[in-house]
Formats: sequence, structure tokens, C-alpha cells
Amino acid sequence: MPQESDFRLTESDIPKPAGGEVLVQNLYLSVDPYVRSRLTGVTTYARGLELGEVIVGGVVGRVAESSDPRLAPGDIVEGMLGWQEYAVASAKRLRKLNPEEAPISTALYVLGMPGLTAYFGLLDICRPQPAETVLVSGAAGAVGSIVGQIARIKRCRSIGIAGSDEKVRYLVNELGFDGAFNYRETDDYDSKIRELCPNGVDVYFDNVGGPITDAVMRRIATRARVAVCGQSSEYNSPDGPGTGPRWLSQLVVRQAKVEGFLVTQFVDRYDTALQQLSNWLRDGKLIYREDVVEGLENAPRAFIRMLEGQSNGKQLVKIAD
Amino acid sequence: MPQESDFRLTESDIPKPAGGEVLVQNLYLSVDPYVRSRLTGVTTYARGLELGEVIVGGVVGRVAESSDPRLAPGDIVEGMLGWQEYAVASAKRLRKLNPEEAPISTALYVLGMPGLTAYFGLLDICRPQPAETVLVSGAAGAVGSIVGQIARIKRCRSIGIAGSDEKVRYLVNELGFDGAFNYRETDDYDSKIRELCPNGVDVYFDNVGGPITDAVMRRIATRARVAVCGQSSEYNSPDGPGTGPRWLSQLVVRQAKVEGFLVTQFVDRYDTALQQLSNWLRDGKLIYREDVVEGLENAPRAFIRMLEGQSNGKQLVKIAD
Repeated sequence: MPQESDFRLTESDIPKPAGGEVLVQNLYLSVDPYVRSRLTGVTTYARGLELGEVIVGGVVGRVAESSDPRLAPGDIVEGMLGWQEYAVASAKRLRKLNPEEAPISTALYVLGMPGLTAYFGLLDICRPQPAETVLVSGAAGAVGSIVGQIARIKRCRSIGIAGSDEKVRYLVNELGFDGAFNYRETDDYDSKIRELCPNGVDVYFDNVGGPITDAVMRRIATRARVAVCGQSSEYNSPDGPGTGPRWLSQLVVRQAKVEGFLVTQFVDRYDTALQQLSNWLRDGKLIYREDVVEGLENAPRAFIRMLEGQSNGKQLVKIAD
Repeated sequence: MPQESDFRLTESDIPKPAGGEVLVQNLYLSVDPYVRSRLTGVTTYARGLELGEVIVGGVVGRVAESSDPRLAPGDIVEGMLGWQEYAVASAKRLRKLNPEEAPISTALYVLGMPGLTAYFGLLDICRPQPAETVLVSGAAGAVGSIVGQIARIKRCRSIGIAGSDEKVRYLVNELGFDGAFNYRETDDYDSKIRELCPNGVDVYFDNVGGPITDAVMRRIATRARVAVCGQSSEYNSPDGPGTGPRWLSQLVVRQAKVEGFLVTQFVDRYDTALQQLSNWLRDGKLIYREDVVEGLENAPRAFIRMLEGQSNGKQLVKIAD
């Protein structure tokens, strides 16, 4: 688990945009679980960050200077920038937002990467059918909370696994999950899953891995589909993923599939998905809650809170008004 | 591992077929790995057999008496019958063979369940593309030997893992695999797989599981597809599947999928597949070798030979001429 002392806040000159670039003043920063896996110096699907580099993150900001005709000063944009107050970025890698449509911070959650991840991971990888049971680990997280709600929209039974009783209440009472349990207060995951998923698990959306997923694999239904989005139980493990029970025979018996994915696979269809998510948000079918920490200097604290499961909603850092 | 003393040969009256049934004189019996998993008394995808029951098996036989208009005495048929000289079966569960088309024993191998398993598992689950690397465990087995050859037909690089140097030579020199290795004589699976699959493993067809599969999972390519057909390394393990390294994060990084399947999922398309397999066989694109033991009393020995990897080709038992 990172410590606040692992981070350093430094000052440097505000850079100038070259041709095709813009200078963005960052307003909101998103801290997300995947960032932890990049703080290792090891390259996986993305390059590992080196000590001293600016940490990457999704940002919503305001264009301060533009050297590209597509964007003008004052435009609100979203993009993969960094933990910083100002950043220069290629205009074509920024998404221009319409502040009339929804609060601009939603571009980092429901109408951003977490929403797209939930959308494609659930609908494309798992293809849930009405009345199927959809189980989500990390269900109160940014991605999981949307997965469970989309499952409800698709008329599935939506069951969540989360890390506190408060989160369980939030999932069931506010987000409309059909059931949920607090894994930290549950000794026997198997019994709890059997109780909440009496017909087995048709779809499992995994953000967590480890012993929770081991238990789910014992309860998958025939022709189950498992989307692997993240394995947060491993992110802070110094010894790597470790070992666990083998379950490939179970996949044969259940004729089931397990598929890992990255949201970037679906980049060609982001627009369609964002339109759908935006409609659901407008119609009140998607509910969200943000946990906003003020000040870039508090980004490490926000990040650690999020990793520890302490955030009360999508963890954001407000950098400027 | 079963012992010959675990089996008992008993005599009983030849049964009479009722309406819609036929009496079959069994000629060839197939012994296959999946049968081991049914000798446990535990129900998985199929009912576990109880002590004293006739063991199930694919059989080619001759109709001796018929109470169904679809089949006449003398017809050659294939079906899931048992380790016995005569069996009564529902006519509609038997496939009538054309002895002019191919040797009748092929209905238990290339033109039967192993061929269909290879066909659908490779082509439907994995969708291999030309120039991709297809790796097969249990490559000299009934299913694996066909998987590797279909991969070649589809212009893939076909790499096999087998359990003896003789099998490795057979795969490469006779079946046209592009490479193979003997896992029993290999200390470091990882290096060997890296050497034979320098661009990673695009498709892995797994019959074996265990440490071989652990090593393959470390070498899967981006967007890899893994078909899980069997886990023969576990079939004789009294303690169940055991534990192994976790690799779900690897699925995310590689955006890869792992899918278990049973050939019966594809029953609606058996005819098409058998026609294609038959064409390939006729054209010399599929080569096969049988290891035929004579006499029903030797079925246990043949079964154990097969499980031990001692068979020299598809293990069959010839019950009658």
C-alpha cells in the first residue's frame, strides 16, 4: 500500500503548447485502481512509471491556451493527463465536453472511463440476458457501481460484493442492487454466494480477484461468462499474484468462459456508449456519488483512501474551480 | 490411476430390443480420457458411474436385431454404449455409418467424438487466423493430434506438447507439426515455450492443465484464446485439482479469454463438421494412427495404457470382427 511519503509535490514552469497542442488547466483529477499497477516500474499493457515521473490520471480541465483550431481557450476537455495543475496535450487526444449536458466531473465517472469500462465489460464481454444473475466484485467502486446498475437496466438480478456494511446498504438501498454482502464481515464466501445467487452466477464481473473470485468460480452456472476487469486484491501484494485453487476443470464442466479486457479495445464505439450512458443518466437510471478531495496536494491521500476502500463514492480531486 | 483389479468382467443374458431400440453387437470400443472423470461417483457435466455399472464408451458395432424402421440387421452404427459385447440402444441415439466412406473405426477418432471435439474447440472457440501460433497440450492424444493438424490446414504454426520423444517425432515428422517438445524431459517449460513460440501463444488448446498450462499462461499473446478441453493432469489426483499460480491479471494485460467447452454444445452442427473432417481425411490432410488391443477382457489394460500415455495412436479395443 503506498504511503503519502512516497509522493513528492514539485513546481516547474508552465509549459507552452506547440502546434496541434493545447495547455490545459486541470480542474478535476480522477484517481483509479489501475494507476496502482503502473507505479511498479514494470510494463504490462502500459508502460510502468519511473520514479520522478508525473503520475498519470484522467483529468477534466479548461483549455488555457490553444495551438490547434479544434479547441479554444475556455473549452472544457477530458483526457489522460497527470497529477498536475497544468498540462500540455495533443488536441486530438482530448475529448471536448458539453457542460450543459451533465456536470463536467461526470466525464471522469459515469460518462468517462469507468462508465465505458462497465458498459463494454458487461454488455460486450458478458452479454447478460434478462433474469440472469450478475455478480460484481468491487461493486461499490467506480466501475462496479455502474456495472450493477446496467445489469438492472438489462433486467438482470444484480448482486454486489463490497467492503463495508455502509457500502452494502448504498448498493441495495440507493443503487437498486438485488442483494449485496460485505466480504470483510463474511467468513464463508461460498455460503453467502449460494444464498444470494441460488441459481448460480451467470455473469461475474471481477474487479478484485483472490479468494472472492475463487469462491465465485465454484458457483458459476452453465455457460457462465466472467469478465476480468481488475484484480485489486493483488495490486499491493509485494510477492505478485500468489497461488490459488485451480478451476479450469470447472470451466469445462460449466462450459464457461473467462475473459480479460481493457476498455481501449472498444475505442471505436466510445461515442455510442457515451450517448447511451448519458441517456440513462438523464433519465435517472444511473445514480452516482462522488467523494471530492480539495487540492492537488491531497491527491496522494485521495489515492490511498480509494485503494483502501475508504472513499464514499467515486474518488476525485478538485484541483481548481 | 486405476488398476486392472478395479475392473470386473461379468456375463449376463443378451437383452432384447424394445420398440424403437436395436441390439448392437459391439465391434470397436474407444477408451478416452473423459471416462476417467466419470469413474468417481461424482456428477459433473454427466452422471458419475456407480460401482458395478457398465462403463460408458464410444462404440462402433453391427446391428444384430432391430425394432426400429431406421436401422436393419447388418447396419454399422456408432454410439455412446458401453464396455460390453452386446448392447441395446435407442435407434435415434445411434449414427449409421457408411463403411464405403472410411474404415469404420474412424467413427471413434477422426470422424467421431475426438475429431468433432478438435474441430469445434479449435475453430469455434479459438478462431485461429493464418500465421498465428497454435499450441496444443496432450498433442499426441486423440483430440490433440487432430487439433494440430487442423491448425496446419488453417495455415497456423502448430506446436505440440507430448509425453515422450517418440511422440514428439511422430508429431513433427508424420503429422506435420511445426515443433513439439517432451514435457517429461523438460525442466523449464517457460524457456521451451519461448523458444518454440517466439511471438507468444495466440491459441492454446488445453487437454492437460497443471504446471504445463501455468507456463503457457505466462506466454500468451495479446488477444489470445484458450480452449479448455480437458485437464488430464488432475484426473487421477485424489486431492482434486490442487493449487497453482493465479493468472487472471495476465488475462487483463493480454485481453485474452479462456473458455471451457463440451463437444455436445455443437451437436446441431455435427453433420457439417463430419463432412469437412471426412473431406480432409480423404484428401490426405488428416493422418491418424490407431493402437488396437484385441478382446473386451483387455479393455481395462487399454484404458490404463491410454491414461498413462503409453498408447501408440488412438487407443481402441477390438471386441469382435
